[in-house]
Amino acid sequence: MRAAFMYGAGDVRVEDTPDPVLRESTDAIVRIVRSCVCGSDLHPYHSMTASEQGTPMGHEFLGVVEDLGSEVSGLRRGDLVVSPFTYSDNTCEFCREGLHTSCRHGGFWASGDIGGAQAEAIRVPQAQGTLVAVPGVGEDSALLPSLLTLADVYGTGYHAAKQARVTAGTTVTVVGDGAVGLLAVLSAKRLGAERIILMGRHKDRTDLGREFGATDVVAERGDEGVELVRELTGGDGTHAVLEAVGHMAAYEMAVGAVRPGGVISRVGVPQYERAPVGFGSLFGHNVTLTGGPAPVRAYIDELLPAVLDGTVDPGKVFDLAIDLEQTPDGYRAMDRREALKTLIRF
Amino acid sequence: MRAAFMYGAGDVRVEDTPDPVLRESTDAIVRIVRSCVCGSDLHPYHSMTASEQGTPMGHEFLGVVEDLGSEVSGLRRGDLVVSPFTYSDNTCEFCREGLHTSCRHGGFWASGDIGGAQAEAIRVPQAQGTLVAVPGVGEDSALLPSLLTLADVYGTGYHAAKQARVTAGTTVTVVGDGAVGLLAVLSAKRLGAERIILMGRHKDRTDLGREFGATDVVAERGDEGVELVRELTGGDGTHAVLEAVGHMAAYEMAVGAVRPGGVISRVGVPQYERAPVGFGSLFGHNVTLTGGPAPVRAYIDELLPAVLDGTVDPGKVFDLAIDLEQTPDGYRAMDRREALKTLIRF
Repeated sequence: MRAAFMYGAGDVRVEDTPDPVLRESTDAIVRIVRSCVCGSDLHPYHSMTASEQGTPMGHEFLGVVEDLGSEVSGLRRGDLVVSPFTYSDNTCEFCREGLHTSCRHGGFWASGDIGGAQAEAIRVPQAQGTLVAVPGVGEDSALLPSLLTLADVYGTGYHAAKQARVTAGTTVTVVGDGAVGLLAVLSAKRLGAERIILMGRHKDRTDLGREFGATDVVAERGDEGVELVRELTGGDGTHAVLEAVGHMAAYEMAVGAVRPGGVISRVGVPQYERAPVGFGSLFGHNVTLTGGPAPVRAYIDELLPAVLDGTVDPGKVFDLAIDLEQTPDGYRAMDRREALKTLIRF
Repeated sequence: MRAAFMYGAGDVRVEDTPDPVLRESTDAIVRIVRSCVCGSDLHPYHSMTASEQGTPMGHEFLGVVEDLGSEVSGLRRGDLVVSPFTYSDNTCEFCREGLHTSCRHGGFWASGDIGGAQAEAIRVPQAQGTLVAVPGVGEDSALLPSLLTLADVYGTGYHAAKQARVTAGTTVTVVGDGAVGLLAVLSAKRLGAERIILMGRHKDRTDLGREFGATDVVAERGDEGVELVRELTGGDGTHAVLEAVGHMAAYEMAVGAVRPGGVISRVGVPQYERAPVGFGSLFGHNVTLTGGPAPVRAYIDELLPAVLDGTVDPGKVFDLAIDLEQTPDGYRAMDRREALKTLIRF
């Protein structure tokens, strides 16, 4: 089969690689129908050390079940399935608590002997716990882009909002106008947020943010941006800040924009290890810092109905569609901010 | 009147100073009946730059109302009152949310033109919102030490447990066997925690911790201590870690001891500004970091009944009682770990 591999910063190649096969009785083989490029894929795209050995890429996909291990039940060959960006058994105590990203038998795609999703097919460990069948949706459905967001970006935006305890009446700042930030806006809106201030400087993206529910847009960054959020909130900042970038500058804006007693909820993968958390930043104002890799499996059942009935259309974050062979172009377009999010068709 | 002042590290003096007088119509003057030395007073005791100008000290007190401004209602001269370690109006939106430490008209004792509580009397701003009368308790009641803990250490331990969402079935690690740590144990127990692991190395203190509800004691520190907590919890760590120290080593132990998806709740005043919060520490495991100065005013009504009826005896944290003139000895005894917490009588 064909699959995308990264060999170093800026160096993505689509190559031949062996077809995946069942290894465990809990596996499935899925033929991929839609995949995409994630904002988090841009981090290694900027910084990866060049290597002789390519790294498989991609962790978001919709596909069709082609083969099933003997222990997998609840799925059939031919099912169209959504996969979360981690696999999990959906039965261990962490999964039962909704923390599928810490599953005792779980893991990430494109790591160890698990392939990536920017590929024609993939072996899915813990298939029964991982995959969610979407009956009645065909391989050519107009719903595919929105369904694909359940694999990561919508669930991740929703995780940010849930962890921040967004509910009716909450005021929210969203830092970042990438796909996750925009879907954090949509999630906050769905959870009843009263006011949603989107910090982002790409007008086409913030326009989509307004469509998703943002009440205000702040294009300025740094101290200037923080000052504007404070002006919009009578000087106090917002109850919740959803940080969907991962860079220190975004963290600092979050600290500046959060209300005393509020919550900073991070879902952008931190590109730093140490950050201000002392009296002057978090502690003095009883600010809570939360977030992490989103257990999107926990949210699919909850988010799916409004996607299926068209109430929400999170798939609008895809503004470029390419074929697998064009994957390097898809990375480049996102890196240059020419594309918000790249959909890969097969 | 007489009052304690700090002139530099290790240099506490009791001196004559003018009696406090009413300045605002919302003030009260309180004659202090019991005060104490706080673990947080030891931070400047270790590090304060020597100064010609003494700094008033102390922020915990019980007293008797001596005088009241014209706008204060609900209090009478002669009332025995408990005071939180911050003053607050108890009516602004932050107070209504239970975040009295961020009150729009609030502040800390011993700052600006507000005196300290290691003194014979004190001016109390926002008296109506700040002071809680305790009817029927005399100036010689055996309950005074326990009532005094409501001014800070019990409410602070309780804040740690509440912010960490401790409830029936929660597993808890408490880092630190000072007064706040021990009362965090008591608080976790009262909130129904299933298991409470106390990290502390002073046997007399951890014995009191066991009396307050600790199920396990880990005397080891650093990686070794973390390893033992993990052994006690099947490798996972505990749902909540209540950090009642404030040093980086305690923060690092908290990160090591917390379960994926768990909460680190800090109430020890951080003696650092930056700390690890990235993928390897908090983010990767969806660990929440919370806490701050405890809005103890919010908890007094809730905690008072069990103190008054003797169900709990948090006053056991006081193991040294001195007169105001001996305050320098009280600091020294706590600094040398000869006393857990020093009570000041008048």
